[in-house]
Amino acid sequence: MVKLVGIAGSLRTESYSHQALAIAASKAQDLGAEVTVLDLRQMTLPFCHGGDYADHPDVAVLQQAVKAADGLILATPEYHGSVSGVLKNALDLMSFEQLDGKVVGTISVLGGQANSNALNDLRKIARWVHAWVIPEQVAIGQAWQAFDEQGKLVDAKLAERLDKLVESLVTHTQKLRPSSVDE
Amino acid sequence: MVKLVGIAGSLRTESYSHQALAIAASKAQDLGAEVTVLDLRQMTLPFCHGGDYADHPDVAVLQQAVKAADGLILATPEYHGSVSGVLKNALDLMSFEQLDGKVVGTISVLGGQANSNALNDLRKIARWVHAWVIPEQVAIGQAWQAFDEQGKLVDAKLAERLDKLVESLVTHTQKLRPSSVDE
Amino acid sequence: MVKLVGIAGSLRTESYSHQALAIAASKAQDLGAEVTVLDLRQMTLPFCHGGDYADHPDVAVLQQAVKAADGLILATPEYHGSVSGVLKNALDLMSFEQLDGKVVGTISVLGGQANSNALNDLRKIARWVHAWVIPEQVAIGQAWQAFDEQGKLVDAKLAERLDKLVESLVTHTQKLRPSSVDE
Amino acid sequence: MVKLVGIAGSLRTESYSHQALAIAASKAQDLGAEVTVLDLRQMTLPFCHGGDYADHPDVAVLQQAVKAADGLILATPEYHGSVSGVLKNALDLMSFEQLDGKVVGTISVLGGQANSNALNDLRKIARWVHAWVIPEQVAIGQAWQAFDEQGKLVDAKLAERLDKLVESLVTHTQKLRPSSVDE
Repeated sequence: MVKLVGIAGSLRTESYSHQALAIAASKAQDLGAEVTVLDLRQMTLPFCHGGDYADHPDVAVLQQAVKAADGLILATPEYHGSVSGVLKNALDLMSFEQLDGKVVGTISVLGGQANSNALNDLRKIARWVHAWVIPEQVAIGQAWQAFDEQGKLVDAKLAERLDKLVESLVTHTQKLRPSSVDE
Repeated sequence: MVKLVGIAGSLRTESYSHQALAIAASKAQDLGAEVTVLDLRQMTLPFCHGGDYADHPDVAVLQQAVKAADGLILATPEYHGSVSGVLKNALDLMSFEQLDGKVVGTISVLGGQANSNALNDLRKIARWVHAWVIPEQVAIGQAWQAFDEQGKLVDAKLAERLDKLVESLVTHTQKLRPSSVDE
Repeated sequence: MVKLVGIAGSLRTESYSHQALAIAASKAQDLGAEVTVLDLRQMTLPFCHGGDYADHPDVAVLQQAVKAADGLILATPEYHGSVSGVLKNALDLMSFEQLDGKVVGTISVLGGQANSNALNDLRKIARWVHAWVIPEQVAIGQAWQAFDEQGKLVDAKLAERLDKLVESLVTHTQKLRPSSVDE
Repeated sequence: MVKLVGIAGSLRTESYSHQALAIAASKAQDLGAEVTVLDLRQMTLPFCHGGDYADHPDVAVLQQAVKAADGLILATPEYHGSVSGVLKNALDLMSFEQLDGKVVGTISVLGGQANSNALNDLRKIARWVHAWVIPEQVAIGQAWQAFDEQGKLVDAKLAERLDKLVESLVTHTQKLRPSSVDE
């Protein structure tokens, strides 16, 4: 079974990134994946300072969950044309030990028109720690009107693209993870 | 007189980003600029959550200092091929009100070989809030051996490039700031 | 007077990039700039091979026109999420001698939804040869329905953004070009 | 058997990109891959104009070879901090039909210090047409002194990194290509 961890890079209570992540996580579960969502709003992560994080046990929670996973779903709000500092900091708290070889699907959420700025940076960052970022990616523009009351995407085409992203993530995580040969 | 604010995106005690920033700030002062260094290690900034920051008066300190400045020196450690989450989060706590039209010089500091990854992202982020990022930029590779005991850059060519970056920043801040016509 | 050169990176007869460039060039002329449009469809440029281009006199035409200019308007179709090879090759045929210190305004034209991919790359490329790329930039999405029969942009907001880009380009070329101090 | 196509984006006679590609192609053959190198210096490709290329049969040669391949080795000189116009134009002459789902390994060659600028853009471009770009990538700096008389890389570490890139490319092309399930 494919093990995925989902992380959304927003601390807003009514975060659209978390809504997008919830859709993706649910779809991945439907496809048989085991999905752990790490809600950064519920965790107490420090800013990355390159030292000891003994006072912040959630750093170990983050690191262990990601290390144990085969793949990741990363959802980021696009702030100032890039990944949120919140998500980048969470990634800064990890390194090759946790991220190398992981298969990653990326989603961005924007207040304005959809754009690939944050997705491009996130792809480059994940590549840097030798993760595999799948070709499919989804940017959800005008997020304030993108979701209905049930938390589903209003735009059927966009919903389908998000579904396909998750399908690709699950399929390719199976193909790419180191253990895949042995199963 | 040109007013600059300097920010280094590292929280490490022995940060090389802060050393690089100190060199640049000192050079700018030599050229007649008024430089305020905001040391994020001394400030208590929260993660950006899009809400109210009344409990974190340093957010207002950051916003007011940057708003009052004509230009910025931004020094970032390159973490995972991009800007540190610490610096991105500080930028996320501001917006057009503080950053639009500011003239920006960018420096990155890396443990490994020099690369433009973080500088590219920082340029794109600053552009997004309509800052002017000057063409000159400096990446300081293998930072652990780049500085001497006095905190100066060992490599004379790199030191000269950093000097030229600051000269360009001061000169062009004078040319580009809105008030330049009236002086 | 500000001297600008405009180049569109498309060879299509009915190119929308050329239409966008024509609007920008006309606006710049209204603002008092002298604008030379180099139409790559009318020129015979070779692929850049790093050798001698004596057989291709248009290389010298390109180089001399850009060298003599204070600023550039670059319009590119977005092909595969980046600058067209046609435009990149034209830029490859020049270097610091022609491009250093030039002030550059960038426009992209896409068949699909607007995106900043090509603009980001073009900004990075122009920066590399030490040009000043102004913060304003315009991406024209769904280009096939973006222009009316007179070649004007249908969307009034987008038209205004393109106007403002040109205004900024003309204003800042005056401020930034080396000769500006002496006039 | 894995079928690879190699393309180097330089037209220089003594091109270092072609040397790097030759090393990679040879290594891939050692690993059992069938490698076709398309030498753009021997082909007559037109600039992409979006029309009919009947007068340029090499466009069809390019398209058919890439379409028939499982993966690609792309080697580009870094010109002005990005992919060469020559290589971008060759990619512009293809689209999803040829490139979708292909597994891609990327190499850049620079006159100056190694940098990831061209590699980043090439990764983004290949992603755009839904290729899989493997995490490994190699930038060969100061190319004029990087190769010995036999065309091998002087720096043993760099040579090893290039070998590992090719190993990863061959291994992952087998895992990722659509037909892999059936073999």
